[in-house]
Amino acid sequence: MSATRRQPGWPFFCFANLRLNSPFNRDEVWPHLPKRVQQTIIDKKLKFFVIDGVKLGNEIGLGSRINVIMQTAFFKISNIIPIDQAVREIKDAIVKSYSKAGEKVVNMNNQAVDVGLENIQEVTVPTSADSTIEMTIGQWAGTPDTVQNTLGPIIDGLGENLPISAMPDDGTFPTGTAMFEKRNIAIETPVWDEELCIQCGICSFVCPHATIRMKIYDEKELAEAPETFKSCAARGKDMGGRKFTLQVAVEDCTGCGACVYNCPVKSKEDENHKAINMQPQPPLRDTERKNLDFFLNLPDTDPALFNSATLKGSQLLPPMFEFSGACAGCGETPFVKLCSQLFGDRMLVANATGCSSIYGGNLPSTPWTTRKDGLGPAWSNSLFEDNAEFGFGFRLAIDKTTEFARELLVKNMACGCAACKGSSELKQAILDADQSSQALIEEQRGRIKQLKAILAKCTHETATQLLADADFLTKKSVWIHGGDGWAYDIGYGGLDHVLATGANVNVLVMDTEVYSNTGGQASKATPMAAVAQFAAGGKQMPKKDLAMMTMTYGNIYVAKVSMANPGQVVKAMLEADAYDGPSLIIAYSHCIAHGINMTSAVDNCKRAVNSGYWPLFRFDPRLAAEGKNPLQLDSKAPSISFEDFANKENRFRMLKKSNPEQAEQLMEASAKDFAARFELYQKLANLSADCGTK
Amino acid sequence: MSATRRQPGWPFFCFANLRLNSPFNRDEVWPHLPKRVQQTIIDKKLKFFVIDGVKLGNEIGLGSRINVIMQTAFFKISNIIPIDQAVREIKDAIVKSYSKAGEKVVNMNNQAVDVGLENIQEVTVPTSADSTIEMTIGQWAGTPDTVQNTLGPIIDGLGENLPISAMPDDGTFPTGTAMFEKRNIAIETPVWDEELCIQCGICSFVCPHATIRMKIYDEKELAEAPETFKSCAARGKDMGGRKFTLQVAVEDCTGCGACVYNCPVKSKEDENHKAINMQPQPPLRDTERKNLDFFLNLPDTDPALFNSATLKGSQLLPPMFEFSGACAGCGETPFVKLCSQLFGDRMLVANATGCSSIYGGNLPSTPWTTRKDGLGPAWSNSLFEDNAEFGFGFRLAIDKTTEFARELLVKNMACGCAACKGSSELKQAILDADQSSQALIEEQRGRIKQLKAILAKCTHETATQLLADADFLTKKSVWIHGGDGWAYDIGYGGLDHVLATGANVNVLVMDTEVYSNTGGQASKATPMAAVAQFAAGGKQMPKKDLAMMTMTYGNIYVAKVSMANPGQVVKAMLEADAYDGPSLIIAYSHCIAHGINMTSAVDNCKRAVNSGYWPLFRFDPRLAAEGKNPLQLDSKAPSISFEDFANKENRFRMLKKSNPEQAEQLMEASAKDFAARFELYQKLANLSADCGTK
Repeated sequence: MSATRRQPGWPFFCFANLRLNSPFNRDEVWPHLPKRVQQTIIDKKLKFFVIDGVKLGNEIGLGSRINVIMQTAFFKISNIIPIDQAVREIKDAIVKSYSKAGEKVVNMNNQAVDVGLENIQEVTVPTSADSTIEMTIGQWAGTPDTVQNTLGPIIDGLGENLPISAMPDDGTFPTGTAMFEKRNIAIETPVWDEELCIQCGICSFVCPHATIRMKIYDEKELAEAPETFKSCAARGKDMGGRKFTLQVAVEDCTGCGACVYNCPVKSKEDENHKAINMQPQPPLRDTERKNLDFFLNLPDTDPALFNSATLKGSQLLPPMFEFSGACAGCGETPFVKLCSQLFGDRMLVANATGCSSIYGGNLPSTPWTTRKDGLGPAWSNSLFEDNAEFGFGFRLAIDKTTEFARELLVKNMACGCAACKGSSELKQAILDADQSSQALIEEQRGRIKQLKAILAKCTHETATQLLADADFLTKKSVWIHGGDGWAYDIGYGGLDHVLATGANVNVLVMDTEVYSNTGGQASKATPMAAVAQFAAGGKQMPKKDLAMMTMTYGNIYVAKVSMANPGQVVKAMLEADAYDGPSLIIAYSHCIAHGINMTSAVDNCKRAVNSGYWPLFRFDPRLAAEGKNPLQLDSKAPSISFEDFANKENRFRMLKKSNPEQAEQLMEASAKDFAARFELYQKLANLSADCGTK
Repeated sequence: MSATRRQPGWPFFCFANLRLNSPFNRDEVWPHLPKRVQQTIIDKKLKFFVIDGVKLGNEIGLGSRINVIMQTAFFKISNIIPIDQAVREIKDAIVKSYSKAGEKVVNMNNQAVDVGLENIQEVTVPTSADSTIEMTIGQWAGTPDTVQNTLGPIIDGLGENLPISAMPDDGTFPTGTAMFEKRNIAIETPVWDEELCIQCGICSFVCPHATIRMKIYDEKELAEAPETFKSCAARGKDMGGRKFTLQVAVEDCTGCGACVYNCPVKSKEDENHKAINMQPQPPLRDTERKNLDFFLNLPDTDPALFNSATLKGSQLLPPMFEFSGACAGCGETPFVKLCSQLFGDRMLVANATGCSSIYGGNLPSTPWTTRKDGLGPAWSNSLFEDNAEFGFGFRLAIDKTTEFARELLVKNMACGCAACKGSSELKQAILDADQSSQALIEEQRGRIKQLKAILAKCTHETATQLLADADFLTKKSVWIHGGDGWAYDIGYGGLDHVLATGANVNVLVMDTEVYSNTGGQASKATPMAAVAQFAAGGKQMPKKDLAMMTMTYGNIYVAKVSMANPGQVVKAMLEADAYDGPSLIIAYSHCIAHGINMTSAVDNCKRAVNSGYWPLFRFDPRLAAEGKNPLQLDSKAPSISFEDFANKENRFRMLKKSNPEQAEQLMEASAKDFAARFELYQKLANLSADCGTK
């Protein structure tokens, strides 16, 4: 899906009419418009109408599905066909489209027609534009130079006024800039109930936009907290009276509601009240902006207090991927975010073309950011057809530079200059360092900092070059990110080649099972029976089993993961990073292209797993080296049928409508295919037990 | 390996000396040189030497390995370093290189030095060039126009004199032209012993150049046979007194000796005498040329007399791939030839770049040819990176044209013109035809011939177009040929994509386990521990298991075959062609790049199979549809070790010499890898039996 950018519901001009979905009525709306919009309405002599579609949708039970309301309002004011005829035809279409979903749905939609007709109001347009609101944000004071001079003006829509000299010489843009685009697109946004919360972290985990943050900190930090800043006692052993806060970035939230939907806690008094609940955003803006600022300035949670190899632990790590332009409820970004939480301080990302390259680096801003000390991911997008190779190049360059830095350091050991005096133990420690855990890596960073201080004054011939390359003496984690269109199709030849080299690269495939970014064309990841572009009659061929194909190498770490089991995702990512060889993680990524409700999409993920459609497993070559079966199945035998999963998604349901016979045949074949596949995985995982040696 | 072309041993000029390996001595050689060569020797004032390296090599037991003889002779006449020093250094090198192979080999090579020194003779060069031999063949009378006007002059080395107009407008060249290049490169060539022969067909099967042919025919055909034409009673039931002949094309033979080596019959009197034996070629040329002409004019063997699904049966079919420029003993061409025997009358070949594209279509000639009625393969080479797609295009075009022809035929049924009168039964029979066997296909061809005769006179509006497309009403077999560099590496992305479409294409991968044509670079098919270009320290990573990767789709026919089991190769090719979906056959193709004796290379193939290195199997989706295990293992559990196989090939042995420690480690890892793989195949093949359902 193409990434959402800037305010939706932006004025829509038609036939010299302007219809605005607005919480302000005909009498209130004018001063809320930016001056430039006011002037345009006056200049173009537009008739201007408002309707509060969102409020009406909620009232009649349709929620955010306000298309029928807005469509009816459009026909009423546009007069392109007689309104009676329009209403008749819309209502006929409603019966045709929704009667299978039941009378209730039909009634709600008919009601939508009625409220659309009733509530569209014409605004009396004043003769002069007197708004104090400018369309530009223009408040870039205090931001980094690049934001002030280059990115800010682009955000303001004034990019065409920038001189070439405002662009970076080498095309490199600073990270951490999506935080400057306060999009304020959520109508409702989550509000934390600190009393109910069990601090499990699931709301933060599923949030596609990293707008829900968690921290544990000393109580004393609260001394200067804003009045509305919330906190409670941190749960768990050895917390020594520390506080816990779950903070929402309401201006960056898209309002998808996945956090609330997935919250496992319900109030005893009101089962609709959870530990996090949606509330209208506008009243929260100002207070929560201050609360967020305060929250971000709190120290990061002490790593000694949690185990990052768990769902909760991973969410106590600061994300280095935040506020992207991905769709509300995106099923890819939680994986990208998690990856940044676990490895952001040392990761380099080669990103294939696709959704992730769009929301990952769409001028003017990037969601990739750093942690407080400035360490963070380096990111670049390459072509669809060479992204694995691109990431492989990162690995080669890093390894060569590390090798060179080590050589220089060995030579530098002999230096007897004043600066180097007594430093040989430090240098040897750097060469011998074990960097197998985050804590050990941070220790190495400490040593390298000392080394750099020495090198700055060292007179040895190696000093200048070693100073430049010293950071390569810390472990780096190379990640190759992309979607199924890249991994299964266009980039597969290269992906296979890079995995076969044995190089230490980590591949994350966000498998939406279609080319999401370009509008949902079938890929080899599309399952049999699903409808997609170029597969209007349902995909005829089975889904390619990229995981099993890759497992045949034997020396590649392979995992299939899903948000259905966050703990397993965290485990797989950590194992992949730790494995000194190629790793492939295939993540089930729900998508608007599936024709599902994105708020409750994790339920779809669970059905995918529980039906055996998406088995969870990890294939770890290290186990084979120990004489064990390398394949560990992390999900159970199917407890629901393939149909139980598929019938909840429009991509499968569509065919039943358009070609029931074909649908039945394909659904049956697909069910059989997935059942056989699950069985094979099960057999492979049980080989040692059932069939003797390995 | 690059294809051998034209006469090897062609004059080698060095430092104004010419050294010729020749059966003629200093007094005899001059009149045997072409006039142009004589004139060049005179004009350039060359010193001219001869030596009969082949005879000397045979005498001292080195056979065709005459490099030391020729090298010593070169140092003697070139004077680039003092000859005593040269001899000393050559002999030192012999000890170093061959001492591991035993004293006998060292002695033979030392003897080679001695005979090289003794036997190089200077020719007294006459003052005028008086040879009656021309370098051009020039005898193109009676050949097709294209051969006379275009290909013949190119064969004669006069291509640069051709006008552009001599080239085909569309780049299409006629097939069946390699037969015009009588290369006469074999020093010895096989001679059939009709009394000993058991008519098994193995000599014909292993022959890389289709120079051994078999026919069964009526005795009356022998009435006008040349005097020396051999025949004997055809073996087998119901032969009704028919005769059998095994004919050798001595002028096209490369003298590899694989036929003789693989002949299973030995004379009781002399165990060195087999049913086919090598003899010097020159004395056989004239008689065998006539015998071959007579043989080719005999009718093809009646298909009712044999079962083409067997080794012997397949060799009674006329090859439509003959006399290519592939290396002597090539391990690829027997598969290409067999494919042409089984499907040549209806096959289209998309050929990836590599050895097979070089020997398959290297101007001026092509080995692809037709059967007697003119039906034969259409062949084209495409790029390395798109050959699977290229072949897929053939399939799409054929299917569309067939569909169109059927539509036209249905419309044409209604025609009441004079020509069409009474033809509706014929037309219906064409539409309903079962074409599942060769005999049924030939029947359809007969019907189409009748249809075309009718259409030539038919007045219906469909007649002209249908006449043009009528041949598409016969079944076609699309083949996609290439080596491992294409299939495992450069073209893999496309290959995977095409196989995943479910289209009815047949892929033949000739797996030499290196990029043979470009000089032996490692591919993903190269096994761990083998030395190759870019893997001088032995390949570190395991061989990619293309077969198992492809099997994961479930709906693709996959077979792994080897000349170790000809019957299984024939079976797999027939099953692949019959399967109405994608098929992949991976053929173990021994190669000079393996560092083996090409004469006895089928022994290497057998060791590959017997060690479990190259398991033979067929994975047939049709079996799964019947509820059976689709995987059938055709080879037994290893009876010899990986080392027993690998130690017989220089590609593995080399590392032991250059880096014994690394070699030991890699060989052990590789042995373990192949053992684990075989075990997995065995387990998968036994799944239903051992692990319950499927």
